[in-house]
Amino acid sequence: MKGIALLGGPTEQWPENLSLILRQAKTMGAIIASSDRGSLFCLEMGIIPDLAVGDFDSLKKDELTKVQSKVADVRYSHPVKDLTDSELLFEALLQDYQVDELEIYGATGGRLDHFFVNIFTFLHNPLNQFCSKVKIIDKQNIIKILNPGKHNLKRQEGFNYFGVSSLSAVEGLNIKKARYLLTDYNNQFPVMFSSNEFIGDEVEISFETGRVMFIYSKDRDRFHNLQ
Amino acid sequence: MKGIALLGGPTEQWPENLSLILRQAKTMGAIIASSDRGSLFCLEMGIIPDLAVGDFDSLKKDELTKVQSKVADVRYSHPVKDLTDSELLFEALLQDYQVDELEIYGATGGRLDHFFVNIFTFLHNPLNQFCSKVKIIDKQNIIKILNPGKHNLKRQEGFNYFGVSSLSAVEGLNIKKARYLLTDYNNQFPVMFSSNEFIGDEVEISFETGRVMFIYSKDRDRFHNLQ
Repeated sequence: MKGIALLGGPTEQWPENLSLILRQAKTMGAIIASSDRGSLFCLEMGIIPDLAVGDFDSLKKDELTKVQSKVADVRYSHPVKDLTDSELLFEALLQDYQVDELEIYGATGGRLDHFFVNIFTFLHNPLNQFCSKVKIIDKQNIIKILNPGKHNLKRQEGFNYFGVSSLSAVEGLNIKKARYLLTDYNNQFPVMFSSNEFIGDEVEISFETGRVMFIYSKDRDRFHNLQ
Repeated sequence: MKGIALLGGPTEQWPENLSLILRQAKTMGAIIASSDRGSLFCLEMGIIPDLAVGDFDSLKKDELTKVQSKVADVRYSHPVKDLTDSELLFEALLQDYQVDELEIYGATGGRLDHFFVNIFTFLHNPLNQFCSKVKIIDKQNIIKILNPGKHNLKRQEGFNYFGVSSLSAVEGLNIKKARYLLTDYNNQFPVMFSSNEFIGDEVEISFETGRVMFIYSKDRDRFHNLQ
Protein backbone atom coordinates (compact mmCIF):
# COMPACT_ATOMS: atom_id res chain seq x y z
CA MET A 1 0.00 0.00 0.00
CA LYS A 2 1.17 3.48 -0.85
CA GLY A 3 1.02 6.34 1.67
CA ILE A 4 0.88 10.06 1.05
CA ALA A 5 1.61 12.51 3.86
CA LEU A 6 0.71 16.19 3.71
CA LEU A 7 2.49 18.27 6.35
CA GLY A 8 1.85 21.87 7.34
CA GLY A 9 4.57 23.61 5.30
CA PRO A 10 3.76 26.49 2.94
CA THR A 11 1.42 25.63 0.07
CA GLU A 12 3.56 27.65 -2.36
CA GLN A 13 6.10 24.81 -2.22
CA TRP A 14 3.61 22.19 -3.37
CA PRO A 15 3.78 20.71 -6.86
CA GLU A 16 1.11 22.53 -8.86
CA ASN A 17 -1.09 19.47 -9.28
CA LEU A 18 -1.01 18.24 -5.67
CA SER A 19 -4.78 18.19 -5.31
CA LEU A 20 -4.98 15.90 -8.36
CA ILE A 21 -2.12 13.75 -7.06
CA LEU A 22 -3.97 13.20 -3.77
CA ARG A 23 -7.29 12.50 -5.47
CA GLN A 24 -5.80 9.98 -7.90
CA ALA A 25 -3.81 8.28 -5.13
CA LYS A 26 -6.97 7.91 -3.03
CA THR A 27 -8.77 6.37 -5.99
CA MET A 28 -5.92 3.90 -6.36
CA GLY A 29 -6.23 2.86 -2.70
CA ALA A 30 -3.41 4.86 -1.17
CA ILE A 31 -3.68 6.01 2.43
CA ILE A 32 -3.80 9.79 2.78
CA ALA A 33 -2.40 11.19 6.02
CA SER A 34 -1.86 14.69 7.34
CA SER A 35 -0.27 16.55 10.21
CA ASP A 36 -0.78 20.05 11.65
CA ARG A 37 -2.23 22.43 9.09
CA GLY A 38 -1.95 19.66 6.48
CA SER A 39 -5.27 18.31 7.78
CA LEU A 40 -6.95 21.64 7.13
CA PHE A 41 -5.39 21.84 3.67
CA CYS A 42 -6.81 18.38 2.86
CA LEU A 43 -10.32 19.37 3.99
CA GLU A 44 -10.11 22.60 1.96
CA MET A 45 -9.28 20.51 -1.11
CA GLY A 46 -12.29 18.32 -0.35
CA ILE A 47 -10.13 15.36 0.57
CA ILE A 48 -10.78 13.42 3.80
CA PRO A 49 -7.49 12.06 5.13
CA ASP A 50 -7.51 8.53 6.50
CA LEU A 51 -5.16 9.50 9.31
CA ALA A 52 -4.54 12.86 10.98
CA VAL A 53 -1.90 13.64 13.61
CA GLY A 54 -1.49 16.86 15.56
CA ASP A 55 -2.42 18.92 18.57
CA PHE A 56 -4.91 20.69 16.26
CA ASP A 57 -4.36 23.98 18.08
CA SER A 58 -4.40 25.89 14.81
CA LEU A 59 -7.87 24.60 13.82
CA LYS A 60 -11.08 26.43 14.66
CA LYS A 61 -13.64 24.48 16.67
CA ASP A 62 -15.84 23.62 13.68
CA GLU A 63 -12.78 22.53 11.70
CA LEU A 64 -11.66 20.27 14.53
CA THR A 65 -15.19 18.85 14.76
CA LYS A 66 -15.03 18.15 11.03
CA VAL A 67 -11.68 16.37 11.40
CA GLN A 68 -13.00 14.33 14.33
CA SER A 69 -16.19 13.34 12.54
CA LYS A 70 -14.69 12.58 9.11
CA VAL A 71 -11.22 11.17 9.74
CA ALA A 72 -11.13 7.47 10.70
CA ASP A 73 -7.86 7.61 12.66
CA VAL A 74 -7.18 10.82 14.59
CA ARG A 75 -4.08 10.81 16.80
CA TYR A 76 -3.58 13.62 19.28
CA SER A 77 -0.07 14.77 20.08
CA HIS A 78 1.06 16.71 23.12
CA PRO A 79 2.48 20.18 22.46
CA VAL A 80 5.57 19.40 24.58
CA LYS A 81 6.98 16.20 23.16
CA ASP A 82 10.10 14.50 21.93
CA LEU A 83 8.78 13.77 18.45
CA THR A 84 7.26 16.38 16.14
CA ASP A 85 3.82 15.78 14.63
CA SER A 86 5.46 14.99 11.29
CA GLU A 87 7.65 12.34 12.90
CA LEU A 88 4.62 10.79 14.64
CA LEU A 89 2.89 10.73 11.25
CA PHE A 90 5.83 9.06 9.48
CA GLU A 91 6.06 6.42 12.23
CA ALA A 92 2.33 5.71 12.06
CA LEU A 93 2.44 5.25 8.29
CA LEU A 94 5.63 3.20 8.09
CA GLN A 95 5.29 1.11 11.27
CA ASP A 96 1.56 0.79 11.95
CA TYR A 97 0.10 1.00 8.44
CA GLN A 98 3.23 -0.59 6.93
CA VAL A 99 3.03 1.41 3.71
CA ASP A 100 5.60 0.17 1.23
CA GLU A 101 6.00 3.57 -0.44
CA LEU A 102 5.66 7.02 1.16
CA GLU A 103 5.45 10.40 -0.60
CA ILE A 104 5.75 13.42 1.69
CA TYR A 105 4.48 16.88 0.69
CA GLY A 106 4.43 20.15 2.63
CA ALA A 107 7.76 19.30 4.29
CA THR A 108 9.90 22.07 2.77
CA GLY A 109 10.13 25.84 2.97
CA GLY A 110 8.77 27.97 5.80
CA ARG A 111 10.41 27.33 9.14
CA LEU A 112 13.71 25.64 8.41
CA ASP A 113 13.95 24.06 11.87
CA HIS A 114 10.87 22.05 10.81
CA PHE A 115 12.35 21.30 7.39
CA PHE A 116 15.56 19.86 8.86
CA VAL A 117 13.58 17.65 11.28
CA ASN A 118 11.75 16.19 8.27
CA ILE A 119 15.07 15.32 6.58
CA PHE A 120 17.25 14.32 9.51
CA THR A 121 14.68 12.07 11.20
CA PHE A 122 15.33 9.57 8.39
CA LEU A 123 19.01 9.33 9.38
CA HIS A 124 18.03 7.67 12.66
CA ASN A 125 16.04 4.64 13.72
CA PRO A 126 13.22 3.81 13.92
CA LEU A 127 12.69 5.66 10.60
CA ASN A 128 16.09 5.10 8.96
CA GLN A 129 15.25 1.45 8.22
CA PHE A 130 12.40 2.64 5.97
CA CYS A 131 14.23 5.43 4.12
CA SER A 132 14.39 3.58 0.78
CA LYS A 133 10.57 3.78 0.67
CA VAL A 134 10.41 7.54 1.19
CA LYS A 135 10.40 10.57 -1.12
CA ILE A 136 10.10 14.16 0.13
CA ILE A 137 8.62 16.15 -2.73
CA ASP A 138 8.08 19.84 -3.50
CA LYS A 139 7.59 21.80 -6.70
CA GLN A 140 11.29 21.87 -7.59
CA ASN A 141 12.78 18.92 -5.72
CA ILE A 142 12.49 15.24 -4.85
CA ILE A 143 14.66 14.23 -1.88
CA LYS A 144 15.76 10.69 -1.06
CA ILE A 145 17.92 9.50 1.86
CA LEU A 146 20.33 6.67 1.07
CA ASN A 147 21.99 4.13 3.35
CA PRO A 148 25.37 2.53 2.52
CA GLY A 149 25.46 0.31 -0.57
CA LYS A 150 24.86 0.71 -4.30
CA HIS A 151 21.82 2.65 -5.54
CA ASN A 152 20.51 3.14 -9.05
CA LEU A 153 18.51 6.36 -9.24
CA LYS A 154 16.18 6.56 -12.22
CA ARG A 155 15.71 9.77 -14.15
CA GLN A 156 12.46 11.56 -13.23
CA GLU A 157 10.64 13.41 -15.96
CA GLY A 158 11.06 17.16 -15.73
CA PHE A 159 13.95 17.05 -13.28
CA ASN A 160 17.07 17.91 -15.27
CA TYR A 161 19.53 18.22 -12.41
CA PHE A 162 20.51 16.28 -9.36
CA GLY A 163 22.64 16.84 -6.28
CA VAL A 164 24.40 14.28 -4.11
CA SER A 165 25.28 15.23 -0.56
CA SER A 166 26.78 13.40 2.36
CA LEU A 167 24.87 14.06 5.59
CA SER A 168 27.56 12.67 7.89
CA ALA A 169 31.12 11.43 7.69
CA VAL A 170 31.20 9.42 4.45
CA GLU A 171 33.63 6.88 3.02
CA GLY A 172 34.03 5.62 -0.52
CA LEU A 173 31.38 7.79 -2.20
CA ASN A 174 31.08 7.25 -5.95
CA ILE A 175 28.89 8.90 -8.59
CA LYS A 176 28.79 6.90 -11.84
CA LYS A 177 26.89 7.12 -15.15
CA ALA A 178 26.41 10.90 -14.69
CA ARG A 179 27.72 14.05 -16.36
CA TYR A 180 30.12 14.72 -13.48
CA LEU A 181 31.75 11.71 -11.86
CA LEU A 182 33.07 11.24 -8.35
CA THR A 183 35.39 8.45 -7.23
CA ASP A 184 36.09 7.13 -3.77
CA TYR A 185 35.34 10.40 -2.00
CA ASN A 186 35.78 10.69 1.77
CA ASN A 187 34.93 13.58 4.07
CA GLN A 188 34.31 14.05 7.77
CA PHE A 189 31.62 16.72 7.22
CA PRO A 190 28.63 16.99 4.85
CA VAL A 191 29.34 18.28 1.36
CA MET A 192 26.85 18.86 -1.47
CA PHE A 193 27.79 18.11 -5.07
CA SER A 194 25.13 20.15 -6.86
CA SER A 195 23.97 20.70 -10.46
CA ASN A 196 24.94 17.27 -11.77
CA GLU A 197 23.03 15.89 -14.76
CA PHE A 198 21.69 12.57 -16.01
CA ILE A 199 23.28 11.30 -19.23
CA GLY A 200 21.23 8.10 -19.39
CA ASP A 201 18.18 6.59 -17.72
CA GLU A 202 19.81 6.31 -14.32
CA VAL A 203 22.84 7.24 -12.26
CA GLU A 204 24.68 5.01 -9.84
CA ILE A 205 25.53 6.18 -6.33
CA SER A 206 27.52 4.01 -3.95
CA PHE A 207 29.24 4.49 -0.61
CA GLU A 208 30.55 2.37 2.23
CA THR A 209 29.72 4.24 5.41
CA GLY A 210 27.58 7.22 6.39
CA ARG A 211 24.36 8.72 5.07
CA VAL A 212 23.79 10.36 1.68
CA MET A 213 21.00 12.57 0.35
CA PHE A 214 20.04 12.49 -3.34
CA ILE A 215 18.05 15.47 -4.66
CA TYR A 216 16.33 15.58 -8.04
CA SER A 217 16.07 19.31 -8.90
CA LYS A 218 14.58 21.51 -11.54
CA ASP A 219 14.66 25.21 -12.26
CA ARG A 220 11.42 27.03 -11.69
CA ASP A 221 9.13 27.66 -14.64
CA ARG A 222 8.89 31.42 -14.35
CA PHE A 223 12.18 33.25 -14.58
CA HIS A 224 11.45 35.24 -11.47
CA ASN A 225 8.77 37.23 -9.77
CA LEU A 226 10.00 40.32 -7.96
CA GLN A 227 8.06 41.30 -4.88
CA MET B 1 33.28 46.55 6.85
CA LYS B 2 29.95 44.76 6.49
CA GLY B 3 29.10 42.72 3.41
CA ILE B 4 25.69 41.83 2.02
CA ALA B 5 25.34 39.07 -0.57
CA LEU B 6 22.24 38.59 -2.70
CA LEU B 7 22.11 35.19 -4.39
CA GLY B 8 19.75 34.01 -7.10
CA GLY B 9 17.19 32.11 -4.98
CA PRO B 10 13.46 32.86 -5.18
CA THR B 11 12.46 36.40 -4.22
CA GLU B 12 9.44 35.06 -2.28
CA GLN B 13 11.89 33.93 0.40
CA TRP B 14 13.31 37.42 0.96
CA PRO B 15 12.50 39.41 4.08
CA GLU B 16 9.80 41.86 3.05
CA ASN B 17 12.00 44.92 3.47
CA LEU B 18 15.09 43.63 1.65
CA SER B 19 15.26 46.57 -0.74
CA LEU B 20 15.37 48.94 2.23
CA ILE B 21 17.94 46.74 4.02
CA LEU B 22 20.25 46.91 0.97
CA ARG B 23 19.78 50.65 0.54
CA GLN B 24 20.45 51.45 4.19
CA ALA B 25 23.49 49.13 4.28
CA LYS B 26 24.94 50.85 1.21
CA THR B 27 24.44 54.25 2.86
CA MET B 28 26.31 52.96 5.91
CA GLY B 29 29.26 51.87 3.74
CA ALA B 30 28.57 48.15 3.43
CA ILE B 31 29.72 46.32 0.32
CA ILE B 32 26.83 44.93 -1.73
CA ALA B 33 27.59 41.81 -3.74
CA SER B 34 25.50 39.55 -5.94
CA SER B 35 25.69 36.28 -7.81
CA ASP B 36 23.66 34.83 -10.68
CA ARG B 37 20.19 36.36 -10.90
CA GLY B 38 20.97 38.30 -7.70
CA SER B 39 22.74 40.88 -9.89
CA LEU B 40 19.63 41.36 -11.95
CA PHE B 41 17.47 41.63 -8.82
CA CYS B 42 19.80 44.38 -7.50
CA LEU B 43 19.57 46.36 -10.74
CA GLU B 44 15.77 46.01 -10.76
CA MET B 45 15.71 47.48 -7.25
CA GLY B 46 17.87 50.36 -8.49
CA ILE B 47 20.88 49.18 -6.48
CA ILE B 48 24.30 48.89 -8.13
CA PRO B 49 26.24 46.07 -6.49
CA ASP B 50 29.93 46.69 -5.78
CA LEU B 51 30.80 43.13 -6.75
CA ALA B 52 29.04 40.69 -9.10
CA VAL B 53 30.00 37.05 -9.69
CA GLY B 54 28.50 34.71 -12.25
CA ASP B 55 28.53 33.37 -15.75
CA PHE B 56 25.70 35.83 -16.46
CA ASP B 57 24.10 33.40 -18.89
CA SER B 58 20.65 34.29 -17.61
CA LEU B 59 21.04 38.01 -18.35
CA LYS B 60 19.97 39.60 -21.63
CA LYS B 61 22.69 41.43 -23.57
CA ASP B 62 21.61 44.91 -22.42
CA GLU B 63 21.40 43.71 -18.83
CA LEU B 64 24.90 42.28 -19.03
CA THR B 65 26.13 45.57 -20.57
CA LYS B 66 24.56 47.39 -17.65
CA VAL B 67 26.28 45.12 -15.12
CA GLN B 68 29.62 45.53 -16.92
CA SER B 69 29.33 49.32 -17.11
CA LYS B 70 27.98 49.95 -13.60
CA VAL B 71 29.57 47.32 -11.33
CA ALA B 72 33.13 48.09 -10.24
CA ASP B 73 34.22 44.46 -9.71
CA VAL B 74 32.74 41.88 -12.10
CA ARG B 75 34.08 38.33 -11.80
CA TYR B 76 33.24 35.79 -14.47
CA SER B 77 32.83 32.18 -13.50
CA HIS B 78 33.06 29.17 -15.78
CA PRO B 79 29.88 27.09 -16.13
CA VAL B 80 31.82 23.89 -15.40
CA LYS B 81 33.63 24.52 -12.13
CA ASP B 82 34.36 23.10 -8.72
CA LEU B 83 32.90 26.05 -6.82
CA THR B 84 29.42 27.44 -7.36
CA ASP B 85 28.95 31.16 -8.05
CA SER B 86 27.70 31.65 -4.51
CA GLU B 87 30.84 30.03 -3.09
CA LEU B 88 33.04 32.24 -5.29
CA LEU B 89 31.10 35.24 -3.99
CA PHE B 90 31.49 34.24 -0.33
CA GLU B 91 35.24 33.70 -0.82
CA ALA B 92 35.66 37.08 -2.53
CA LEU B 93 33.84 38.89 0.27
CA LEU B 94 35.46 37.09 3.20
CA GLN B 95 38.98 36.63 1.84
CA ASP B 96 39.57 39.49 -0.64
CA TYR B 97 37.34 42.20 0.80
CA GLN B 98 37.83 40.91 4.35
CA VAL B 99 34.32 41.87 5.47
CA ASP B 100 33.94 41.36 9.20
CA GLU B 101 30.21 40.62 8.98
CA LEU B 102 28.31 38.93 6.13
CA GLU B 103 24.56 38.75 5.61
CA ILE B 104 23.42 36.39 2.86
CA TYR B 105 19.99 36.66 1.20
CA GLY B 106 18.49 34.68 -1.67
CA ALA B 107 20.19 31.50 -0.45
CA THR B 108 17.11 29.48 0.53
CA GLY B 109 14.13 27.89 -1.23
CA GLY B 110 14.03 26.96 -4.89
CA ARG B 111 16.51 24.28 -5.89
CA LEU B 112 17.53 22.52 -2.71
CA ASP B 113 20.82 21.27 -4.16
CA HIS B 114 21.79 24.97 -4.30
CA PHE B 115 20.46 25.61 -0.80
CA PHE B 116 22.53 22.83 0.72
CA VAL B 117 25.70 24.09 -1.01
CA ASN B 118 25.12 27.46 0.63
CA ILE B 119 24.91 25.86 4.07
CA PHE B 120 27.46 23.08 3.84
CA THR B 121 30.23 25.18 2.25
CA PHE B 122 30.64 26.82 5.68
CA LEU B 123 31.49 23.44 7.25
CA HIS B 124 34.73 23.32 5.24
CA ASN B 125 37.76 25.50 4.79
CA PRO B 126 38.50 28.00 3.41
CA LEU B 127 35.06 29.31 4.47
CA ASN B 128 34.64 27.50 7.81
CA GLN B 129 37.17 29.80 9.52
CA PHE B 130 34.83 32.73 8.80
CA CYS B 131 31.53 31.14 9.83
CA SER B 132 31.09 33.20 13.02
CA LYS B 133 30.79 36.29 10.78
CA VAL B 134 28.03 34.86 8.61
CA LYS B 135 24.22 34.89 8.75
CA ILE B 136 22.01 33.30 6.09
CA ILE B 137 18.70 35.13 6.22
CA ASP B 138 15.25 34.65 4.71
CA LYS B 139 11.78 35.82 5.67
CA GLN B 140 11.29 33.21 8.38
CA ASN B 141 14.80 32.15 9.36
CA ILE B 142 18.31 33.26 10.32
CA ILE B 143 20.89 30.50 10.03
CA LYS B 144 24.27 30.45 11.76
CA ILE B 145 26.97 27.75 11.60
CA LEU B 146 28.87 27.13 14.84
CA ASN B 147 32.29 25.60 15.45
CA PRO B 148 33.17 23.80 18.70
CA GLY B 149 33.20 25.94 21.83
CA LYS B 150 30.70 27.99 23.80
CA HIS B 151 28.34 30.36 22.00
CA ASN B 152 25.87 32.88 23.38
CA LEU B 153 23.11 33.48 20.85
CA LYS B 154 21.19 36.68 21.43
CA ARG B 155 17.44 36.84 20.94
CA GLN B 156 16.47 38.44 17.62
CA GLU B 157 13.33 40.56 17.56
CA GLY B 158 10.41 38.81 15.89
CA PHE B 159 11.97 35.35 15.96
CA ASN B 160 10.18 33.44 18.72
CA TYR B 161 11.64 29.99 18.07
CA PHE B 162 15.01 28.46 17.48
CA GLY B 163 16.37 25.11 16.39
CA VAL B 164 19.75 23.56 17.15
CA SER B 165 21.05 20.87 14.83
CA SER B 166 24.25 18.93 14.59
CA LEU B 167 25.55 18.77 11.01
CA SER B 168 28.08 15.98 11.65
CA ALA B 169 29.03 13.63 14.43
CA VAL B 170 28.80 15.74 17.58
CA GLU B 171 30.10 15.31 21.12
CA GLY B 172 29.08 17.08 24.32
CA LEU B 173 26.28 19.24 22.90
CA ASN B 174 24.54 21.41 25.51
CA ILE B 175 21.64 23.84 25.25
CA LYS B 176 21.36 26.11 28.29
CA LYS B 177 19.25 29.12 29.31
CA ALA B 178 16.44 27.98 26.98
CA ARG B 179 12.92 26.61 27.40
CA TYR B 180 14.08 23.07 26.53
CA LEU B 181 17.51 22.04 27.79
CA LEU B 182 19.95 19.51 26.41
CA THR B 183 22.91 18.08 28.31
CA ASP B 184 26.01 16.36 26.99
CA TYR B 185 24.36 15.01 23.85
CA ASN B 186 26.31 12.80 21.45
CA ASN B 187 25.28 11.43 18.07
CA GLN B 188 26.99 10.07 15.01
CA PHE B 189 24.47 11.59 12.59
CA PRO B 190 22.81 15.02 12.32
CA VAL B 191 19.77 15.60 14.49
CA MET B 192 17.61 18.75 14.66
CA PHE B 193 16.13 19.90 17.99
CA SER B 194 13.38 22.18 16.70
CA SER B 195 10.83 24.60 18.19
CA ASN B 196 12.89 25.61 21.20
CA GLU B 197 12.25 29.05 22.76
CA PHE B 198 14.20 31.86 24.37
CA ILE B 199 13.41 32.50 28.03
CA GLY B 200 15.90 35.36 28.44
CA ASP B 201 18.01 37.59 26.24
CA GLU B 202 20.26 34.79 25.04
CA VAL B 203 20.75 31.04 24.97
CA GLU B 204 23.99 29.21 25.45
CA ILE B 205 25.09 26.48 23.04
CA SER B 206 28.28 24.53 23.60
CA PHE B 207 29.85 21.41 22.13
CA GLU B 208 33.26 19.77 21.96
CA THR B 209 33.56 18.32 18.47
CA GLY B 210 31.65 18.57 15.20
CA ARG B 211 29.60 21.28 13.53
CA VAL B 212 26.29 22.74 14.70
CA MET B 213 23.66 24.86 12.97
CA PHE B 214 21.58 27.38 14.92
CA ILE B 215 18.35 28.58 13.28
CA TYR B 216 16.26 31.50 14.52
CA SER B 217 12.73 30.81 13.20
CA LYS B 218 9.36 32.49 13.11
CA ASP B 219 5.94 31.46 11.92
CA ARG B 220 4.71 33.23 8.84
CA ASP B 221 2.42 36.22 9.19
CA ARG B 222 -0.43 34.92 7.09
CA PHE B 223 -2.00 31.71 8.28
CA HIS B 224 -1.85 30.15 4.85
CA ASN B 225 -2.57 30.84 1.24
CA LEU B 226 -4.04 27.91 -0.62
CA GLN B 227 -3.11 27.68 -4.28
